[in-house]
Amino acid sequence: MSIGLSLPRADGAEKLSGRATYTADIALPGMLHAKLLRSSHAHARLLRVDAGRARTAPGVHAVLTRDDVPEGLMPVYGYFIKDQPIVATDRVRHVGDIIAAVAAETEAQAVAALALIEVEYEALPVVASIEAALAEDAPELFPQAPIGFVPAYGEGARGALRPAKNICFEFGYRMGDAAVFDRCDHVFEDEFRFSRMWHFHLEPFVSVADARDGRIEIWSSNQNPFPLRKELSRIFRMPENAITVRVPYVGGGFGSKNNCKTEPAAVLLSMLAGRPVRLALTLAEGFLTNTQHAAILRLRTGVMSDGRLVARQSHIELDAGAYSDASPLVAEKAGYRIPGPYAWEHVESLCRCVMTNTAPAGPFRGFGGTQATWASESQIDMIARRLGISPLAMRQKNLLKLHQAYMPGESGVDSDMEDGLQTVLAAIHHTPAPDRGLGFAVGFKDGGGVNKPAQARVKVSTNGDVFLGCGTVEIGQGARTAIPQIVAEILGTSATRIRVAPIDTDHTPFDQGTNASSGIAVMGQAVARAATAVRDQVLGFAAAQMGTPPETLRLEDWHIIRGNERLPLGPMIMRYYGGTGFEFTADGFFKPDSDHHAPLEAQCVYWEIGWAAAEVEVDRGTGQFTVTQLVVAGDAGRAINPMLCRGQDEGSAIMGYAQAMFETMRYDAAGELLNGDPLHYRVPLAEDLPARFTTLTLEQGHGPGPFGSKGLGEGAMLPVAAAIANALEDAVGIRITELPLTPERVLRALDNLEKATA
Amino acid sequence: MSIGLSLPRADGAEKLSGRATYTADIALPGMLHAKLLRSSHAHARLLRVDAGRARTAPGVHAVLTRDDVPEGLMPVYGYFIKDQPIVATDRVRHVGDIIAAVAAETEAQAVAALALIEVEYEALPVVASIEAALAEDAPELFPQAPIGFVPAYGEGARGALRPAKNICFEFGYRMGDAAVFDRCDHVFEDEFRFSRMWHFHLEPFVSVADARDGRIEIWSSNQNPFPLRKELSRIFRMPENAITVRVPYVGGGFGSKNNCKTEPAAVLLSMLAGRPVRLALTLAEGFLTNTQHAAILRLRTGVMSDGRLVARQSHIELDAGAYSDASPLVAEKAGYRIPGPYAWEHVESLCRCVMTNTAPAGPFRGFGGTQATWASESQIDMIARRLGISPLAMRQKNLLKLHQAYMPGESGVDSDMEDGLQTVLAAIHHTPAPDRGLGFAVGFKDGGGVNKPAQARVKVSTNGDVFLGCGTVEIGQGARTAIPQIVAEILGTSATRIRVAPIDTDHTPFDQGTNASSGIAVMGQAVARAATAVRDQVLGFAAAQMGTPPETLRLEDWHIIRGNERLPLGPMIMRYYGGTGFEFTADGFFKPDSDHHAPLEAQCVYWEIGWAAAEVEVDRGTGQFTVTQLVVAGDAGRAINPMLCRGQDEGSAIMGYAQAMFETMRYDAAGELLNGDPLHYRVPLAEDLPARFTTLTLEQGHGPGPFGSKGLGEGAMLPVAAAIANALEDAVGIRITELPLTPERVLRALDNLEKATA
Repeated sequence: MSIGLSLPRADGAEKLSGRATYTADIALPGMLHAKLLRSSHAHARLLRVDAGRARTAPGVHAVLTRDDVPEGLMPVYGYFIKDQPIVATDRVRHVGDIIAAVAAETEAQAVAALALIEVEYEALPVVASIEAALAEDAPELFPQAPIGFVPAYGEGARGALRPAKNICFEFGYRMGDAAVFDRCDHVFEDEFRFSRMWHFHLEPFVSVADARDGRIEIWSSNQNPFPLRKELSRIFRMPENAITVRVPYVGGGFGSKNNCKTEPAAVLLSMLAGRPVRLALTLAEGFLTNTQHAAILRLRTGVMSDGRLVARQSHIELDAGAYSDASPLVAEKAGYRIPGPYAWEHVESLCRCVMTNTAPAGPFRGFGGTQATWASESQIDMIARRLGISPLAMRQKNLLKLHQAYMPGESGVDSDMEDGLQTVLAAIHHTPAPDRGLGFAVGFKDGGGVNKPAQARVKVSTNGDVFLGCGTVEIGQGARTAIPQIVAEILGTSATRIRVAPIDTDHTPFDQGTNASSGIAVMGQAVARAATAVRDQVLGFAAAQMGTPPETLRLEDWHIIRGNERLPLGPMIMRYYGGTGFEFTADGFFKPDSDHHAPLEAQCVYWEIGWAAAEVEVDRGTGQFTVTQLVVAGDAGRAINPMLCRGQDEGSAIMGYAQAMFETMRYDAAGELLNGDPLHYRVPLAEDLPARFTTLTLEQGHGPGPFGSKGLGEGAMLPVAAAIANALEDAVGIRITELPLTPERVLRALDNLEKATA
Repeated sequence: MSIGLSLPRADGAEKLSGRATYTADIALPGMLHAKLLRSSHAHARLLRVDAGRARTAPGVHAVLTRDDVPEGLMPVYGYFIKDQPIVATDRVRHVGDIIAAVAAETEAQAVAALALIEVEYEALPVVASIEAALAEDAPELFPQAPIGFVPAYGEGARGALRPAKNICFEFGYRMGDAAVFDRCDHVFEDEFRFSRMWHFHLEPFVSVADARDGRIEIWSSNQNPFPLRKELSRIFRMPENAITVRVPYVGGGFGSKNNCKTEPAAVLLSMLAGRPVRLALTLAEGFLTNTQHAAILRLRTGVMSDGRLVARQSHIELDAGAYSDASPLVAEKAGYRIPGPYAWEHVESLCRCVMTNTAPAGPFRGFGGTQATWASESQIDMIARRLGISPLAMRQKNLLKLHQAYMPGESGVDSDMEDGLQTVLAAIHHTPAPDRGLGFAVGFKDGGGVNKPAQARVKVSTNGDVFLGCGTVEIGQGARTAIPQIVAEILGTSATRIRVAPIDTDHTPFDQGTNASSGIAVMGQAVARAATAVRDQVLGFAAAQMGTPPETLRLEDWHIIRGNERLPLGPMIMRYYGGTGFEFTADGFFKPDSDHHAPLEAQCVYWEIGWAAAEVEVDRGTGQFTVTQLVVAGDAGRAINPMLCRGQDEGSAIMGYAQAMFETMRYDAAGELLNGDPLHYRVPLAEDLPARFTTLTLEQGHGPGPFGSKGLGEGAMLPVAAAIANALEDAVGIRITELPLTPERVLRALDNLEKATA
């Protein structure tokens, strides 16, 4: 039995000892080191880029500017809209935009050469916020028509490219009749502001590219080896089998290491230099590379006096930053998830991606669900209090029941929402007291990716040593430990006998990527099918050798068990296959089996749910407040490895807590990031945690993954901020609608409350 | 259409330009360089090995002697009998036996350190030939009991380990009743001697090993990645999935790069040094590593006066050299093949592997068939002439017919023997003249390996770029060109769109090895099945998308063809699979489907046949003779790539020609190899070739491989020597029974003939 065991991390010893290989550890003979020159302007025309002196600087082998991009390439990238240049051409659009790159014998030489590049800018007006970008007189950031496509949304949903100036994409969804608002006893309109975090993955973006002889070999800290290969294939107009992507361990990503980032620059430098090139960004450069989406969310919610939720219209603006990246998909997720896990008669959403002169925003843990939950769960609480109904009763009345469809035609929710809520409330030991309050919230998103196919392969040697081929990247989440447990369970062996073969796109079965908490629920199913097929092959082989029906046999520790008999498989295989033996091998394939005319979400694999309860104590004099208790739960369906689930839930809850309390990127009006480095960007320390901090991994058992599992790792982040904001209102009657929940805002709200009640 | 096209080598450009990666090109960070200290004695007790000074020599990181082999290892290797030590322990058994190894920062430092190792020998009597080893008073080379096993032979055959002193293995085969000899009109007994060649692969043996952290990663110039992995697993007592074998291009092997050679030493050095280690032998060290088997073959053949062959007894002694290596299997092949492609009533063979104090003998192109054909085809001619029957008529009377079983219960021969013979005779333009003669012969062996399973994998990206996973090593034979042609044909695409994924045992489908001409006939069938399965998947997918039966569809250039419609597959796949697409993937498996109680040869995949006709002109005064014409044919069944077939047949015929004429390893009685380096070992130059040299690749169409193909590359070597010896008799009436056919031997035979007829 492997399932349910808290096996230690398979990668633990090598990571602790420093022996584990990350992309930064890849060293190729003749490898050069690259550094990037970045824009100092948030928005400017690039008048002159003169790299003449850099080209002859000591140790320099290649310089990449807009003048060095070979003809015939497609030197822009992006998920849906190809709008991000490998190096800036006519203009720069955010502080940090890449203007040039140098590959030299050493990093120091590359840095020295970059200083010799002369750049002349013509400053353009900067829009550093959603409001500035939408202002009547705002400059148009992308005058040319977008190159891209609208993801194919289903019924009730629509998408539009560039519906207006500075909006790269707009998602709309509609269910039911807006006329029901007229029947509502109350209609509440509220606006919420969501802050922007950085992913803060400890491993920076690193790529090592060897692009010679008509081939590209690349190692990269990337969550999505196959999509990266496809994007490189498109950019460099090379077949996909001329490109090999290898992904060693990845030191965290949280969404940022998707699609491509600086990989094309590394490839181009290698092509220009005719040598392998290592491009390792600093941690601080990560702030300039990809971020979460700040957002403004406006909700109009119609309810009955008894608390029944009837209708919700929402209008969301996401700050997409300088380039579109995954914004269209984040917009779809935020726009579709904003109603939350409640039963509605009418829903209407509009979510727009607003381009600004800030770092590009992209996938981030929670993927639109964080923004949506913050606004929705804040407003549900506000409405309950306005109606004089307890926030718990309000939710009990409206929460979707287990297996109830989220939207018409949609798959049913696969967690018991109320049970989870009762669990966190039972676990928090709240005693009412002055200036102390209790808040809670339910976070809600679909997991597993959209319509995502996954493939895996299992092969087993003569001696029972197992090889697992699967494209899920070990990004710290524990995939290399938990996924083999599924194989071990099915093959009746120990998880330690399973080797996860390093990812190499020439060999590894195709996978769309390590995102959307898909490892266990999506890849896990492909893996389980491969393992089951191998087990059946082995039993069939043994049955034929033994002249017995396979049903009478069982596999255990690479022995065939028949009644009391226990026959070693190795000798049986050698007898039949001779020579040096054999490997049993099978592929497993999984794809959500759904109607493709249904809305995209109808093809969702599972629902990822998080519940949080928070207790706060407020110092009315200073606005300082303490989260004295925080209890957060996620539903694993079935925990394949409880310890790893706990790690994911803890990390996710802490990320939500940090965003609630202080973690945020601060831009000035000129588009300058004011805290874009690890010293000034405040991430939580252990001492920042609530005095009582508990995460609970529920095992409600309804997941579609192997053994009833679901993915997790995002759900626990979602409800934390709203739970704390709700607790603040419970404690001192203030409502803060903007993240983070700083003492300054609390103090201001207390002042305003005092003024209002005075 | 790809089959039958002489496509240029896929690896041609990179090999010609020097960009192709061989093991010697692998460079790892921190890699050390290793060299070996070898025995100067052919047979001696090792009294003292003192490496103390070497250990502290400049740049040295590890020294491996018998004192440095860690406890718990199995420090010996071998195919069947584990008798070859990684480094010598108690004694050395041939000049060149490995006594120590040093890994240092540079090769020069390693060489310098080796010179500091002090070795004290106690010389033992040397046996440098079969006769010496079998002499009554010969020393016993392996006093201890053999560790090993007898390959499981079938009916009529038997194997015995160490049946007598200095015989490591003995193979016997018997069919029919020996009493038929009594009915024969004539019984002829003749003895033949077969010389020993070196493989002379231009790429020396090279390994790069990184054995740290409980894992072994190894790159090696090895024909058999999976058997190597298994042997390392056994030696180092590590699971097979803790070992990754990668094989880049291999620069020729001809059988020598089988199982393991110096790989274990490289691994041990890496373990000791804690750094990657590159162990590159010189070309000359190859002579000390593995060779062909010299042999003495005695035939007793019973015939009727009309030339009908009735019974043959044979007694073969192979010079196995110092260690058993593949000798048991070579013995089985020589012993079983010695009757040749003729119909017999009785066959009885005994083949013994004699241990001597010379380099270990192992697999060599022809694998026992060369020795057998030399003797058998010489004697058939001799008998014909003794009976006054033309050698052609003699063969016509006795040759097996197409599909006739070789031995009872054995698969039928799959070439038309007589047709091939007539073809080479028609192609040689022989006009009788004084001292000019014509000879011919038929070479015969089973191909494809014994009972050999093969697996392959084909995957195709959204855009139709194909990845082929297959364990066949590109060793110069053209596997990377011809095997993709099979895939291309089946998928209706161009062979240039197919990438052969580099061999990596973690990923690559299992294969028993690149030997026995198995690439096309065995692996080709696995590959064809994988490609067919992928094609069927794709057509099934398209049929479902189009709502049409798959039978109405065809695949061409990654388009679906239905009548006049031509639909690109890429968009169809993106519509269904979304995101970043998909890869169709399938495995193919092939294993000869035979009764495993039958003799091994009953499980043979196909028969590899070569025909040769030679014309010679002899200078009676000097014994000098010229091969004025040489025509050699092999049957490809169907030529997948005719140009590559021609390359194989030419190379094979030239190797046979060189062995017939001059190429041989010469040992003195002390076991010293007298010509063990590329300067003194005579290989053919272009100017050595016969004035008229023609090879013909026949396509008789009866092969079991894809599209009627068979393997080739060994058959053309087999008959050459006998054809030339037969031509010498035809020209001047002499019979030479020992290779090579030197002018000295010709002159001596002419002298003897003169004396006898005087």
